[in-house]
Amino acid sequence: MSGRIHNEALRSKVMSAPDAAALVRNGWNIGFSGFTGAGYPKDFPEALAGRIDAAHHQGEEFKVNVLTGASTAPELDGALARTGGINFRAPYQSDPEMRSAINKGISYYSDIHLSHMGPQVSQGFLGKMDLAVIEVTAITEDGELIPSSSVGMNRTYLDYADKVILEVNEWQSEELRGMHDIYYPIGALPPNRVPLPILTPSDRIGQLTLKVDPEKIIAIIVTDSPDRNTPFKPLDHDSKAIAGHLLDFLSNEVKQGRMPKNLLPMQSGVGNIANAVLAGLLEGPFENMTSYTEVIQDGMVDLLDSGKMRVASATAFSLSPTAAERLNNNAKDYRDKIILRPQDVSNHPEAIRRMGVIACNGMIEADIYGNVNSTHVMGSRMQNGIGGSGDFTRNGYFSSFVTPSTAKGGAISCIVPMVNHVDHTEHDVSVIITEQGLADLRGLAPRQRAKLIIENCAHPSFKEPLREYVKLAEKVANGLHTPHDLESALSWHIRFLKTGTMVS
Amino acid sequence: MSGRIHNEALRSKVMSAPDAAALVRNGWNIGFSGFTGAGYPKDFPEALAGRIDAAHHQGEEFKVNVLTGASTAPELDGALARTGGINFRAPYQSDPEMRSAINKGISYYSDIHLSHMGPQVSQGFLGKMDLAVIEVTAITEDGELIPSSSVGMNRTYLDYADKVILEVNEWQSEELRGMHDIYYPIGALPPNRVPLPILTPSDRIGQLTLKVDPEKIIAIIVTDSPDRNTPFKPLDHDSKAIAGHLLDFLSNEVKQGRMPKNLLPMQSGVGNIANAVLAGLLEGPFENMTSYTEVIQDGMVDLLDSGKMRVASATAFSLSPTAAERLNNNAKDYRDKIILRPQDVSNHPEAIRRMGVIACNGMIEADIYGNVNSTHVMGSRMQNGIGGSGDFTRNGYFSSFVTPSTAKGGAISCIVPMVNHVDHTEHDVSVIITEQGLADLRGLAPRQRAKLIIENCAHPSFKEPLREYVKLAEKVANGLHTPHDLESALSWHIRFLKTGTMVS
Repeated sequence: MSGRIHNEALRSKVMSAPDAAALVRNGWNIGFSGFTGAGYPKDFPEALAGRIDAAHHQGEEFKVNVLTGASTAPELDGALARTGGINFRAPYQSDPEMRSAINKGISYYSDIHLSHMGPQVSQGFLGKMDLAVIEVTAITEDGELIPSSSVGMNRTYLDYADKVILEVNEWQSEELRGMHDIYYPIGALPPNRVPLPILTPSDRIGQLTLKVDPEKIIAIIVTDSPDRNTPFKPLDHDSKAIAGHLLDFLSNEVKQGRMPKNLLPMQSGVGNIANAVLAGLLEGPFENMTSYTEVIQDGMVDLLDSGKMRVASATAFSLSPTAAERLNNNAKDYRDKIILRPQDVSNHPEAIRRMGVIACNGMIEADIYGNVNSTHVMGSRMQNGIGGSGDFTRNGYFSSFVTPSTAKGGAISCIVPMVNHVDHTEHDVSVIITEQGLADLRGLAPRQRAKLIIENCAHPSFKEPLREYVKLAEKVANGLHTPHDLESALSWHIRFLKTGTMVS
Repeated sequence: MSGRIHNEALRSKVMSAPDAAALVRNGWNIGFSGFTGAGYPKDFPEALAGRIDAAHHQGEEFKVNVLTGASTAPELDGALARTGGINFRAPYQSDPEMRSAINKGISYYSDIHLSHMGPQVSQGFLGKMDLAVIEVTAITEDGELIPSSSVGMNRTYLDYADKVILEVNEWQSEELRGMHDIYYPIGALPPNRVPLPILTPSDRIGQLTLKVDPEKIIAIIVTDSPDRNTPFKPLDHDSKAIAGHLLDFLSNEVKQGRMPKNLLPMQSGVGNIANAVLAGLLEGPFENMTSYTEVIQDGMVDLLDSGKMRVASATAFSLSPTAAERLNNNAKDYRDKIILRPQDVSNHPEAIRRMGVIACNGMIEADIYGNVNSTHVMGSRMQNGIGGSGDFTRNGYFSSFVTPSTAKGGAISCIVPMVNHVDHTEHDVSVIITEQGLADLRGLAPRQRAKLIIENCAHPSFKEPLREYVKLAEKVANGLHTPHDLESALSWHIRFLKTGTMVS
């Protein structure tokens, strides 16, 4: 029996993962914990996959809908996607098996802003929630839940699901207790919603635990497994160059009086470039910084350790194995500097606009007029999803998007005449950065943006073809606001699909 | 001398419009009042146009940047655009002359979310403001300004411009006094922003007047001209059908328990379809309604008169001549039911999300996967702009988009394989409505949306070509998440440009 279950009555609910999985019925709408590879249930999904496989083996239909906070790990998305038993997936994923099921047409996927997921569930737009499966660090004597390494959608799923299965993960440090801030009033439906009382990233407004109706708990599983923690790649030239351009830009904004000396709260997407930006901040001139973001990565922990960053607010960790170990062994020391909130608070438009968060997100491609594609490869194929990039981009002080100027060894230009899918419109994109340079699009019309983006951001080998596209478009277009030649606007993508390269 | 200028000292600033225009210098960044044809300066812009024409006649360079609240009227956009002297225009326009200057490449236009305009100016992203030209109803004894029929960006322009010119318009009813609610703390820059204390559309949180530093006032012009008020067309079959589908949908939402019986605050875009929806509500079953929107149209006034709507909050009027007269003659009676706020309050994401506003906006076209184009004709040509549609769509309880299923006598399908420009992404669009029917996209993946949109919303003559596109796309696409055939995705628009019709 786990020493983490301090409530007497609930101990009787402990069972094996397969026994718990046996309680699930075909067609259920299931809300799983898990955000960016942190805090997802470790054993139950594999057991459920086994149950689905067995049903399929006997010729029975068995499919479930899988809702999460964001991406999870092979043990959840991978295991379930492999069975072909995921009917519907939302709001974000990044697992190869899951992606494959989506792009093969096996699973339906709805790519939803992470700040919209809470309202959509509580407003009933995604249907009745049958089950919540939530990883926790411990259960208190009075039956409240100590969250683990992500909060994500857990508050909402626990509130709205008919039934609850808990995984108590003994691998998670008990000292995470005190790091969370669970704000319940945010779940209210209109007309009963009230202002979100966050003025700075360090504001604590809620409670330390998640509440659950004990009557709803149908199973508790004890686990002892690490989160999916992936090492970051060593910083490469492109990442460092991109980080450098952003830091120069921020320095100039401070110099021009458009931003305080300690900047404004930073948001940063996940991945190697974001990590490079954080590494750049470690060397940079800014002190007393704060972060109001989705995910805490290695670079953020380094900034907190250095004292350059005062506090980081997020909804989940996404750490390398070494940083995860460091954090897990010293969780107590980070409780004053790190706050983990529900994702409808970490990504709330209200908080982001009020605090003037600096948004910085990766992308797949941008076009010459400032539209950004974050999700689709060559028009049809889903990569991961929009995640929280829209929440921060639309509502931040300004928004920046970063990518190397080319991909696939130079075969793909990440600056194109027209993006193959739009996730962030020209109305929302302030700054585009590649290793080549930075285009500051604020206050510019589309034709002005095109010039800057081509000259500052495109790779030298694609600059002349882009200039030629503009020249042609200005000649044939039916208007000079956003000159396009619709016949060749997507020709770069078509060429890639046919020949494997955008180079003509 | 106007009896509307109650401040003694300011009376000395009264002068003619040409004298005031003579004070303007080449290159100035000018913030004008005006929102949807209401409350724009009536005489100064024509005088400025005369000054620009004279300069051009003498071979001198003379261009200005024209920032407003939203669209204005021939006396402002029309007069200035005709000179070729508008270098840059933001954030919204709908004037034929202005549109022509943009699409001929004479003027640069930046199409900005109306709720972003305040922050962008105050954050310094649109440059130093040289001059504010603001229409008011009267000037109080202590030099404060009674706003006229729109509030728009006036608070921000008065605060940030170096110099101010006022137009006191005696046509505007003096009894507008008391209808406005000017909330000053919203203009704070981060880290000093605080929660917006609006819980319901009827909440008054600010003051009745606009403040201005009297030292900045360089001229006062007295005018006596009506706003640009356009009659609405009689409700046609398509508008009534669209309104009917929306009202059925709302009734069902109430029935399913997803919305209160008196609905949630309504937003409605401008135009004949929006007006039909309001007319439909007048006949419908809902009582005790409220509105939190941008613009008050005739249909909204009818709803207030009928008692079915309790209160309407907006930033401007957009009335027919008869409704304008009715309102102007009885302004006192409407002061408890109508609140006019700055556009960074009327369109604030925080308020819209909190109150769960029901967003309903017109569009140019939607594609089968749920992306919406509100601004561009055939890829390159700007129509009006995104206006506030993004503010309400992204942050509302849900978002609906309406259009007849065809345009140009059936030559254009408003449901297309791929939109020629994206203003509202698939992540933001809940419901699409044409006279044919309604597609409820909530919780659906792109392929599921395509089926619904084609079968429910497309015009019968375009259904089969759309089905064929999907069949082709599913065969050739590199992924089945959002199946596209990039070679023919924009072919309908290309065909229209070549042959004048999308029909093959």
